[in-house]
Order: sequence, then structure tokens, then C-alpha cells
Amino acid sequence: MTDHAASTLVLSVDAMGGDQGPAPVVAGLALFLDRADSDVHILLHGDQDQLTPLLAKRKIASRVTVVHASDVVSMTDKPSHVMRHGKATSMWSAVEAVRSKDAAVCVSCGNTGALMAVSMIRLRKAEGVNRPAIACLWPSRNKTGFNVMLDAGADIRADEEDLLTYALMGTSYARNGLGLARPRVGLLNVGTEEHKGRAELKVAGEMIAKAAPHGDFDYIGFVEGGDLPSDRVDVVVTDGFTGNVALKTGEGTANFISDSLRAAFKATPFSMIAALLAATSLRRLRRKIDPRRVNGGVFLGLNGTVIKSHGSADATGVAAALDLAAQLGRSSFADKLAARVASAAVHAQDDATEEAAKTSGASKDT
Amino acid sequence: MTDHAASTLVLSVDAMGGDQGPAPVVAGLALFLDRADSDVHILLHGDQDQLTPLLAKRKIASRVTVVHASDVVSMTDKPSHVMRHGKATSMWSAVEAVRSKDAAVCVSCGNTGALMAVSMIRLRKAEGVNRPAIACLWPSRNKTGFNVMLDAGADIRADEEDLLTYALMGTSYARNGLGLARPRVGLLNVGTEEHKGRAELKVAGEMIAKAAPHGDFDYIGFVEGGDLPSDRVDVVVTDGFTGNVALKTGEGTANFISDSLRAAFKATPFSMIAALLAATSLRRLRRKIDPRRVNGGVFLGLNGTVIKSHGSADATGVAAALDLAAQLGRSSFADKLAARVASAAVHAQDDATEEAAKTSGASKDT
Repeated sequence: MTDHAASTLVLSVDAMGGDQGPAPVVAGLALFLDRADSDVHILLHGDQDQLTPLLAKRKIASRVTVVHASDVVSMTDKPSHVMRHGKATSMWSAVEAVRSKDAAVCVSCGNTGALMAVSMIRLRKAEGVNRPAIACLWPSRNKTGFNVMLDAGADIRADEEDLLTYALMGTSYARNGLGLARPRVGLLNVGTEEHKGRAELKVAGEMIAKAAPHGDFDYIGFVEGGDLPSDRVDVVVTDGFTGNVALKTGEGTANFISDSLRAAFKATPFSMIAALLAATSLRRLRRKIDPRRVNGGVFLGLNGTVIKSHGSADATGVAAALDLAAQLGRSSFADKLAARVASAAVHAQDDATEEAAKTSGASKDT
Repeated sequence: MTDHAASTLVLSVDAMGGDQGPAPVVAGLALFLDRADSDVHILLHGDQDQLTPLLAKRKIASRVTVVHASDVVSMTDKPSHVMRHGKATSMWSAVEAVRSKDAAVCVSCGNTGALMAVSMIRLRKAEGVNRPAIACLWPSRNKTGFNVMLDAGADIRADEEDLLTYALMGTSYARNGLGLARPRVGLLNVGTEEHKGRAELKVAGEMIAKAAPHGDFDYIGFVEGGDLPSDRVDVVVTDGFTGNVALKTGEGTANFISDSLRAAFKATPFSMIAALLAATSLRRLRRKIDPRRVNGGVFLGLNGTVIKSHGSADATGVAAALDLAAQLGRSSFADKLAARVASAAVHAQDDATEEAAKTSGASKDT
């Protein structure tokens, strides 16, 4: 089915599932294609009759192939329903293009639960992964401007094995998404002292510390909620319940302060003049902490890369998710991640064998 | 032992346990006494030789009785150690004054774990409370400027019964601390739909909904991290692990934005002028979201009220914690809270009896 040259990077985009339908998706696509390399091609999944005029208007029809899908996953559809009855949806079609290797990465603004469910059944979990995770970028004091946090809500549970896998997947993402050679990994807890928190966190910490030398990352131990925007860590590992609450708490706090700031600038004539004078600097700050710039939760641990863009993303947000998709597609991220997880399993096996040999050796001596 | 008139409000203050020793505590005390009613008296626990000159300097010796304690709980002392060997510490002495009814409320800047441990063994859990909780105030869009969140980290676990107790204790605190007649309670989860999240949250939600009519509060269902600063809820209930991560994430995000804002105002000459012009409005905003203003986690569910002030609190922070202590002391908060929890248990018993009667009635009919 692929009719593009070998060097072409093909991205698969679900045009339909967002809150505002296909218009902001196509607008974001135009923004992205304008700055993307000329060898990027898009497979755009959705209703042909709606998409064709939108593409013509944005003058990007030549770089986009529409893949017609008659049905749409709505924001209220339950994942189980979509898994059974969703074959004709644009979301299903978009994920399918990654499964068939027609596209390197899939991007969708649709219903998160449904997208994870469809991705799971079509792409399947990668070897050695029990629970896939969603990784998000968190604005931080680090040089790159971001930290990676996972799981942001793919699963509400994670045991110590899952947390180890998240550490491996998160470092792979930090390497390929943020360009960090040796990411620092921290485990989210209610205190940094070793005796703090849940028992499974202590076990997970020991497992992650053991995997660090083979995995080309540093384990810095427990971190707290306050470290999410800090520069002492690059990858923050947690279960999807805690991660989702933290993510939404951070977003909610940022919005609250930003609204309060806007109100403060309207409080007096002086402050209104001040707002004008400070406009450029404040715009720079806004860009720095703008949630649209970090749009795109990445599903990790599947045989293929799927990016969940925010449901209410505008053109800027959609374009940011596509930038990330292009970067991960170029670096063959999914293959590299799978190799990392598999290699860790081999090392763990080796360590266990070595340990067993030592133990049996010791027992012979005594 | 009490030598104050019946109408006097006596507060018990641990002078020693904070990061910077007794000086900021005494400074905060002076700030507080300056604005407090003249019938407020303080029992100040700590090293007499250090405290006497500090009190003289602040000219507040007449309103303060020093209770000498030779030992201090350090920030690194383990709670178990303090429970066994802490009888001579200022923290122990400060809690003891609430147990003996010499003081209405205890305030300490010391080690949270140790303070909770000492409070538990000296004050004991109130009737019907399995796990005490720490409630904190969260800056919000509500008219009062705050929401209540609990548990902020007293315990890393909470089952459905505990979450129900937290709802009852949190509403009692919102009534007495924020003056809300009928607080709205939400349960923190990863989504607002009924099928979302952990199984125990669904059960807890049903139990809280059932208790709402007798408890003079409204249950609004699941809320998300983004609702913590929102105006759709007054009391957010969660386990201490999630609550602690959320609290520190919110604080960390606020600090990150505040630092970035400061940097933005230094970016250009224009923005520096702007900062001067907007100074008053920005100060107002800072006051609104200043963590020192909401200083004071309240331990709920013990036979007596203990307030944990931030370890690094300055005079403003200490004074804020003392304001809260005075307010809760005046309203006989601990007694009211105990009555609420006890009455809920009675109602639950009545409901169960009624249900049983109905069921047995129904079985007779069939």
C-alpha cells in the first residue's frame, strides 16, 4: 500500500476525534507541514467529503493522502464499545496504518481510553511489557525545558515490575524525545527518605537501581511532587493514578495562577500599562509554560508509537503533537524502546543466573 | 494547673522544632498577639534560657508562659524514636498541654511524622476514627479563597471507611475553619465518570453520598486534580499518598511559575518598568497564592486539635498558623468534629437496621 519513497517519513493522523472536529486538525497540519521537511507525508483518516475542502483551503492536498473512514469515535464512547464496534472509525484506521507499517507514528485528538484500547488490540504490547504507559512532558527548570513523567494515566495500577518497565521506557523516551544521553530517573513518593511510602516503591527502587548501569541512566531515588518541575531529575516514574492526579493538579494550578495574573493586571490603570510594557516578556513566559507546547501524551510499550493530542487542542497544539511525532518517527523510537526493554530483561536474567551461581557456590563452600 | 480565667483562650506552642529554631516562632507570636484578642494566652514550650530574652525583645512576656523543655525533636528524628525517647521534648510538652486541657489547640513547626506520632499516643484517636488525617487549605476560585483537601499525608493508605470519615471531618473543618454552612464534598479520582478509577473509590462514593443528608453537606461525586483550585467543590477527599503528591505538585508548580515570572520581569528594561507599575497588583496576587498565608495542616480525628506549621515558616507563616489555631480553639472545633463523626456512625447504624427491617419485611411478603 505504501507508494512513498523509502526515505519519506509517513505520519498517520486521525482527523475526526477531537472536540471541535477536523478543522483544527487540518489547520495544525498546515502549520506543521509548513515547517516540516519536504519528505514528510500524511495519511489523514476521516470523512473524505469533509476533509477534501479543508485540505484545499489550506493548500496542503499534495502532501496529504485522505484515507476515508465513515465512522467517528466520540468523547463519550466507552473503550469496550469501540473495541467491538469501532472498525469503521477514523481512529481505528489511523492506528491500523502504524500496524501495517504504512506510517511510522499515529496522532489522534480522540478519546484517550478508546485510543489506548484500539492501540492495545491492534499494535499489541511489546515483548516484556505488562502495562503500557502514557508519558507526558512536564515544563521544568532543566535545560531542555522539560521533564518526562509516566504513567500519566494509561492504567490506574502499577506494581514494582511495571514501575521498572516505566523507568526503562521513560529513559528511552527522554533519549529520543529530549536528546538526553544519560537521563536521571526518580521514583515519585511522599518523601525522599528510604523508609517513606508504600512497600512496593521500596522494591521498585531497588530494581530500578539495579537496572541503571545496563540501561545507561542514573537512578536518583525517591522524588516528591515538588520535583516534577525541578532540575534534579529528568524522568519521574509513578503509577497512572498518581500520575494523572499530579498532571491535572499541575495544569489546574497553572491555569489558576494564570487567570489570577490576568485579573491582577486589570486591577488598576497602572497595572494595565504595566501589562502592555511587559507584554513580550509575559508572552515568553506563557510560551514556556503553555500546555499547548507540550501537547502530546505518548503511549509507550506497544509495537508502534501512538501520540494522544489533547481533545481540545487548537492548531498550535496539533502542530506540536505532529512535531513530536516526526521526531519520534525519524529516530525509529518504537524499535529502540523495544530493544531497551528486551535488553533489560536479558540483563536481569543474567544477574539472576549469576546470583544463583554465587549462592550455590557459597552453599558448596559451607 | 490552669490559672487563666474561664473565657481566656489558651494556645500551646512548640517553640523549638522548626528549621530556624525559636526566633521566627517568637516573631510570629508577636505578630499574632498584636492582632489577637487580649484574652488570648500562650503556653510556649522550649528552652527557657533561649526563650526568655526573645520574649523580652518582642515585649510579649506578659501574655506568654514559658513551659521549660530541655530536649528538641529534630527534623531527622524518626517518629518511632520520638515516641520512645521524646518525653522531655518541647513537642511532647506542647501536645501534652492539649491532652491535659490546659490549652485548646497545639501549634508546632516540627517534624510532621513525629508530631503525628506524639499526637496519636497522647491524644488518642477520636471515637469512630480509624485513620486520622491532615487537612490543608488550597487556594481556590471559591469566595472564601480556599478549598479543604485531606488527607495531605498523615497516612499513605485509606480504605472506603477512612475516606467516608475524611469526608465527615473535612466538612466539619470547612464549617469551622472557612465558615461554610453546607460544604460540597468531592472524591479525588482520575475522571469524573462513575466507572472511572479504583474500585474502593466507587464504594467510598456511595457511602459518602448516603451520609450526606444526615451530615449537612452535598456530595458532588468524583473530582479531578484540576478541581483542587476550582469553585465547584469545597472539600476534596483522597488518601494521604495521592494528597501529599498533589499538594507538593501544586506548591512546586506555583513556585516554578512564580520564579519564571520574576525572571520574565527582569528580561527587558520595559518589563522592569512594568514590574514597578504592577507592583501593587502583583503583591495582591502573591498574597492570594502565598503558601505562607495557608500555613497550617490540621490533624483531624484526634481528641484535641494539633496544627502543623511549615518547618521553614517565617514570622508571617507562624502567625497564620496561630490565627487558624485561635479560630478553631474558639469554635470548640475538636468537640464538634467528634460529635459529627459519632452522629454519622449512629445514622449508619439506623440505616442498616432500617434496611434489614425492610429486607426481612420483603421476604415475609414473598
